[in-house]
Amino acid sequence: MTTIFILNGPNLNLLGRREPDIYGSDTLEDAERRCRAACPAGVVLRFLQSNHEGQLIDWIHEAREAAFGIVINPGGLSHTSVALLDALGAFDGPVIEVHVSNIHRREPFRHRSFVSRRADGVIAGFGIEGYEAALRRILTLLG
Amino acid sequence: MTTIFILNGPNLNLLGRREPDIYGSDTLEDAERRCRAACPAGVVLRFLQSNHEGQLIDWIHEAREAAFGIVINPGGLSHTSVALLDALGAFDGPVIEVHVSNIHRREPFRHRSFVSRRADGVIAGFGIEGYEAALRRILTLLG
Amino acid sequence: MTTIFILNGPNLNLLGRREPDIYGSDTLEDAERRCRAACPAGVVLRFLQSNHEGQLIDWIHEAREAAFGIVINPGGLSHTSVALLDALGAFDGPVIEVHVSNIHRREPFRHRSFVSRRADGVIAGFGIEGYEAALRRILTLLG
Amino acid sequence: MTTIFILNGPNLNLLGRREPDIYGSDTLEDAERRCRAACPAGVVLRFLQSNHEGQLIDWIHEAREAAFGIVINPGGLSHTSVALLDALGAFDGPVIEVHVSNIHRREPFRHRSFVSRRADGVIAGFGIEGYEAALRRILTLLG
Amino acid sequence: MTTIFILNGPNLNLLGRREPDIYGSDTLEDAERRCRAACPAGVVLRFLQSNHEGQLIDWIHEAREAAFGIVINPGGLSHTSVALLDALGAFDGPVIEVHVSNIHRREPFRHRSFVSRRADGVIAGFGIEGYEAALRRILTLLG
Amino acid sequence: MTTIFILNGPNLNLLGRREPDIYGSDTLEDAERRCRAACPAGVVLRFLQSNHEGQLIDWIHEAREAAFGIVINPGGLSHTSVALLDALGAFDGPVIEVHVSNIHRREPFRHRSFVSRRADGVIAGFGIEGYEAALRRILTLLG
Amino acid sequence: MTTIFILNGPNLNLLGRREPDIYGSDTLEDAERRCRAACPAGVVLRFLQSNHEGQLIDWIHEAREAAFGIVINPGGLSHTSVALLDALGAFDGPVIEVHVSNIHRREPFRHRSFVSRRADGVIAGFGIEGYEAALRRILTLLG
Amino acid sequence: MTTIFILNGPNLNLLGRREPDIYGSDTLEDAERRCRAACPAGVVLRFLQSNHEGQLIDWIHEAREAAFGIVINPGGLSHTSVALLDALGAFDGPVIEVHVSNIHRREPFRHRSFVSRRADGVIAGFGIEGYEAALRRILTLLG
Amino acid sequence: MTTIFILNGPNLNLLGRREPDIYGSDTLEDAERRCRAACPAGVVLRFLQSNHEGQLIDWIHEAREAAFGIVINPGGLSHTSVALLDALGAFDGPVIEVHVSNIHRREPFRHRSFVSRRADGVIAGFGIEGYEAALRRILTLLG
Amino acid sequence: MTTIFILNGPNLNLLGRREPDIYGSDTLEDAERRCRAACPAGVVLRFLQSNHEGQLIDWIHEAREAAFGIVINPGGLSHTSVALLDALGAFDGPVIEVHVSNIHRREPFRHRSFVSRRADGVIAGFGIEGYEAALRRILTLLG
Amino acid sequence: MTTIFILNGPNLNLLGRREPDIYGSDTLEDAERRCRAACPAGVVLRFLQSNHEGQLIDWIHEAREAAFGIVINPGGLSHTSVALLDALGAFDGPVIEVHVSNIHRREPFRHRSFVSRRADGVIAGFGIEGYEAALRRILTLLG
Amino acid sequence: MTTIFILNGPNLNLLGRREPDIYGSDTLEDAERRCRAACPAGVVLRFLQSNHEGQLIDWIHEAREAAFGIVINPGGLSHTSVALLDALGAFDGPVIEVHVSNIHRREPFRHRSFVSRRADGVIAGFGIEGYEAALRRILTLLG
Repeated sequence: MTTIFILNGPNLNLLGRREPDIYGSDTLEDAERRCRAACPAGVVLRFLQSNHEGQLIDWIHEAREAAFGIVINPGGLSHTSVALLDALGAFDGPVIEVHVSNIHRREPFRHRSFVSRRADGVIAGFGIEGYEAALRRILTLLG
Repeated sequence: MTTIFILNGPNLNLLGRREPDIYGSDTLEDAERRCRAACPAGVVLRFLQSNHEGQLIDWIHEAREAAFGIVINPGGLSHTSVALLDALGAFDGPVIEVHVSNIHRREPFRHRSFVSRRADGVIAGFGIEGYEAALRRILTLLG
Repeated sequence: MTTIFILNGPNLNLLGRREPDIYGSDTLEDAERRCRAACPAGVVLRFLQSNHEGQLIDWIHEAREAAFGIVINPGGLSHTSVALLDALGAFDGPVIEVHVSNIHRREPFRHRSFVSRRADGVIAGFGIEGYEAALRRILTLLG
Repeated sequence: MTTIFILNGPNLNLLGRREPDIYGSDTLEDAERRCRAACPAGVVLRFLQSNHEGQLIDWIHEAREAAFGIVINPGGLSHTSVALLDALGAFDGPVIEVHVSNIHRREPFRHRSFVSRRADGVIAGFGIEGYEAALRRILTLLG
Repeated sequence: MTTIFILNGPNLNLLGRREPDIYGSDTLEDAERRCRAACPAGVVLRFLQSNHEGQLIDWIHEAREAAFGIVINPGGLSHTSVALLDALGAFDGPVIEVHVSNIHRREPFRHRSFVSRRADGVIAGFGIEGYEAALRRILTLLG
Repeated sequence: MTTIFILNGPNLNLLGRREPDIYGSDTLEDAERRCRAACPAGVVLRFLQSNHEGQLIDWIHEAREAAFGIVINPGGLSHTSVALLDALGAFDGPVIEVHVSNIHRREPFRHRSFVSRRADGVIAGFGIEGYEAALRRILTLLG
Repeated sequence: MTTIFILNGPNLNLLGRREPDIYGSDTLEDAERRCRAACPAGVVLRFLQSNHEGQLIDWIHEAREAAFGIVINPGGLSHTSVALLDALGAFDGPVIEVHVSNIHRREPFRHRSFVSRRADGVIAGFGIEGYEAALRRILTLLG
Repeated sequence: MTTIFILNGPNLNLLGRREPDIYGSDTLEDAERRCRAACPAGVVLRFLQSNHEGQLIDWIHEAREAAFGIVINPGGLSHTSVALLDALGAFDGPVIEVHVSNIHRREPFRHRSFVSRRADGVIAGFGIEGYEAALRRILTLLG
Repeated sequence: MTTIFILNGPNLNLLGRREPDIYGSDTLEDAERRCRAACPAGVVLRFLQSNHEGQLIDWIHEAREAAFGIVINPGGLSHTSVALLDALGAFDGPVIEVHVSNIHRREPFRHRSFVSRRADGVIAGFGIEGYEAALRRILTLLG
Repeated sequence: MTTIFILNGPNLNLLGRREPDIYGSDTLEDAERRCRAACPAGVVLRFLQSNHEGQLIDWIHEAREAAFGIVINPGGLSHTSVALLDALGAFDGPVIEVHVSNIHRREPFRHRSFVSRRADGVIAGFGIEGYEAALRRILTLLG
Repeated sequence: MTTIFILNGPNLNLLGRREPDIYGSDTLEDAERRCRAACPAGVVLRFLQSNHEGQLIDWIHEAREAAFGIVINPGGLSHTSVALLDALGAFDGPVIEVHVSNIHRREPFRHRSFVSRRADGVIAGFGIEGYEAALRRILTLLG
Repeated sequence: MTTIFILNGPNLNLLGRREPDIYGSDTLEDAERRCRAACPAGVVLRFLQSNHEGQLIDWIHEAREAAFGIVINPGGLSHTSVALLDALGAFDGPVIEVHVSNIHRREPFRHRSFVSRRADGVIAGFGIEGYEAALRRILTLLG
């Protein structure tokens, strides 16, 4: 059995309910459902969310043993957390970064992501479809 | 009944006891007392403090359902937390930002506040009197 | 008798009549009225406005002898006038800076205020209620 | 009757007499004459100059009631005066900014103009012909 | 019949043959084949490449009449061409930007893309799989 | 016979049809018509447009022998093309730069124009009237 | 009895197991062992690690009462956490900052440490030997 | 008869009475007295002060006809006034800039002076002795 | 037979005829003649010039198969073209960059060359002698 | 026999006698004494100081043949000397950089050290104890 | 007997002979002569020049015991030498910085002087008269 | 007889022996030999090296009388020494700057050379062949 972690950072629990003109109306549950539907047999998804940076780091540490790859939407931590970058630096498998909105069209402080320095791929502005594309990419790399 | 959240970020539990030449000698309990005294009947205050960014975000999420407005002193997170800004972006009511000291007279990295991008009003350098003025402003907007 | 100067810089004579989506519809006369109502017996207010930087500096010099404290809304000069900062540096009493709008949500060149380097407190985005809160703060410091 | 203000900032009273290699040898009186010649019946020009920022702001305030449009050559204040920008922001009609020299070929601090953030059109380096072109533009917009 | 343009900028004709440690060994023909395989009946793909900025702009102009959406890998022009951005600004349908490598892990001048200011979505570092994901996104938006 | 070149860069063929809230609804043909109407006998206009930087450079080289002056609207190349600046640097006659919109009110990367370093005059935000004013300026300089 | 806190931030639980070319192969347990061996009788060490910023702040607050000095390796928080800086600002005893790698040879965002603004001493690139040297320094200051 | 203007900008009327740790205790009258004592027969001094930028510009214009040279202490306008620089640019004689304090040891925004771009000489941190040295320099140049 | 490409970018067709105080009076034909004279038997030179970036890229692609090394004077594209850099990145042989003038003594935007990031050697300010020195260097590397 | 160089740059001959609030009252002789006491048999220390950059470079060149490692306190040259950095780059053994004060708490121009780009370890703010810790580190690496 | 050091940095031995349009035609010997003429009985001048930074530092160290004050023209070292600044920081008496030309009108890298951070006064653009004025200032402070 | 100085700055005495992957394996003696071989009769070469900035300046001063031209490889001083730039500014003949490696491909602080502001030509990345090309250029200019 292969496991893939799909991690979500701060405020993503509100997806679909906050600022819908930016983030759309699909919820995180919709994203999870879509990922599970796209997931082949023999692959286990752990779909998680936390508003706590430390919790996300703990999960990434856990993934070192437990997971083949990580899909991560770091939310606002993308732009500010070196600790998150370092945690991902300690993970050996593929990492794909997802943003629901196109962060490059928004305020300048959202253009830089520390996580992108470690990610193998980055996808932004695809709505929750980005999660599915990210998962597919991990599966491709899984071979 | 209307509820107003008064949130305090990292290190504010030490107010009045740390660096008094910068922050003065009034404590957070003094600030709370002063707010409660200024609070009219029919308005409930939730006066909270945490050193954990994630906890503050959780409270702001809770305020979406539970509160008319938020007074927030984000402490050192003001200058670094996009996640806090995004949480406040998901709140529809008025937000007033309080700083006990005048952050604009201090080190340059304290001059920029992410929270100010969302706040309706900002007050700095009024000591704990700033809390009361912030609360009054929320009450004014409550009409 | 104690005197407090409330000084207003360029364009504030048009308050309530220009760009109301930014500055609201309250006028400078409303602000003055509100301050006078909040002013205790024994305290004299001088509520003044000028579009001329030099005039504002002259008034601040005058306040050196005549006033206990200064409330100042420097308007556009906030961001550009070192001369105004220096004038306030020559005044020994408390100085509170007021901005009707939250300047930190506006164009980047409005984020920096020279006056804030001297002010004891800064309040922004409270509409004309900011004048009253500033006056209260001066009165608190008057003891 | 329609009125158009043509405002000139600091040092423009010396036009044609100072630094002619930069500004040419035409005087402000030449510019005024040229504008008056190009002005159709039924349109009144007020052609004014001051070295005082506050006076220029006062005139712009006056134009709110009195003028259809403003042509302004802010001189050195272009690059430094937020107060002038704010005054023009309080004017609803068309604003055209004129510079006698091409400021973009000169020192870097002359490349940025606060006034350009409000102006509908900007013309630079046309000598005093720029005044006439600016006036024509206002007349076009007058319809 | 619906048409989708897939445009490729300078040097992408060498994909798979230049700097394979950065770009991988799949060729542009592989990318085209993959897109055609993923393309449903009733949708026509125009898969084009040019080393000339002007040619790419001409194609985007053509797409205004002829295409529902555009997938574009602007290559090195991403970082330097305002003209390309403006051309895409004249196109009303969805635009998805593709980069074969994760440009955010490379030299700083590759971190900024003018095209991202217009694109609805951006995908980078997915290899040629990014083309297919981009096409799927356009198809989703086609409904 | 005297010849004047009026050169237009990328995307200007779409003038009046793309982003009309920025560029207005007048077309490049309207601009050409207006220029021809303002052109005295004995002066030949060559009114040209290309989306290719190289083509524009070729035309400027041709103008070295063939033209008295150049009016140029470089479009998006204004902000990025040193090659265009150098080509104009090889032309001895007057150069007037035209922008239909006021580029100084738009995104920061549009505030700097390489072409302005060579141009004798710059006009922006006059709509297509700017072409006519630029032509008049060249005619003035022709004497 | 005198107590010294040795605090470790995010990802240091993985020391010796992640990116050994940067951090070496010694573990945090090795560092602790080394410190305990160097610690004289009468001095108690509290050797702690957390991935949670809030937890680290709580421990620093605790140290205000309980400890003579603090040795801290803030990990990735060094570069981003004003809240941690403020917590240390509320501690009166000596603070020594440790980095296992020489952060000045790494990416530019690792060159700036907020904690260094408060620390009495900083040691980087000594591997886990840095912990022992830091402890010795605290003991020296203990006298 | 030769005339020399000695001009003083905002707040210099308070010299000796404001912030004496920065500016010393000598007054502007002391400076004037010292200059008059050092002034040879046949040279007339006009020693002037204003808090109004426009007044200073008017005086400089007047000096074009009336004065051989100008000594100027522009106060806070040094750092912000392009208009003052332009006025001095219209004066043909020698210009010496004086600052009572050493502005290069103070806040960074005081390190740049627009006036220095035009001044022939600059003297700072000599207290009021700087006025006398500046006057001597003008007299030297007078020959 | 070994082939060496000598590529020239925009405006170099005018060498010797434009801005001779910067570029001297030698023409591109002189440069070619000089290179051919210095070229040993058995080495073929292709000496080419274009004002079109795309054409230069096409030639560099062609050189991948056809040439041992490239001498390139990218003209104004040096400073702006990532696409050209990427094309050269796809070429395996030696690349020498030539500038006729010393670009480091000119405007700041000419100090940075994207091409220099790929070039093995750079020579500037040697006039057309630089072409010959560059060719010699390629021949040296050819062995 | 193994040799270790301990090099000291400009002004360190005055250690303990200049600015003691910054550098403490221990002298360079104290530092040397402390190092010699900590030095095991079989290791020779060369403890040197010079105010001349060139002399320091000469010593580093000498160390290439003569020394196992270098401890260096470059003084003010840390922040400005690329030549020193290059000299150390030519040395193959371990290099430890020492600063008596914590340079990161001082003026911004002291935060960057060219030497840190080459040093294996950096220690600052430990007073002269830093020399001993640096020496110990070299001895550790000596094994 | 009181001693004053007058120190001159690199290239000042050529004063009057190099770039006379910038530095004038007076020589360093002229400057020395002028200082000696202005020097009262009982004051000894040591007038020195070196092209070696280390030599200048050595002299400043010597001045700690031997001199009341220092006049220094650091030449090009003004802008680059922290070591010189530190040496002057170790001197307790008055320091006056002299520049023959007005460095603020020259290239930007000449606008910043490290020495100005320590100097009590700075004089620039007075030619060699600046030396005499600086000496007078030291004599004033000597009382 | 004509003399040419070939000056070498810090660390170049180690050429061929330090960091050969950057600088190659040719030594400074090889460079000298190559120059002497290329030098025609009647031209004297002085080939010198020093690690001391002051010595290099002394030699340049000497060259004012003694040499027709200077070839200089300033080593690390290129990027930091204004004093060296000023010394070369006092030399009237041609100056050619040589760097063995292509400094534009290395760390950003190596991209700027003060010496390039004065040099007539710059050559980098040609290995020691650069010395010969530089010498040839001087000989060309000698005519």
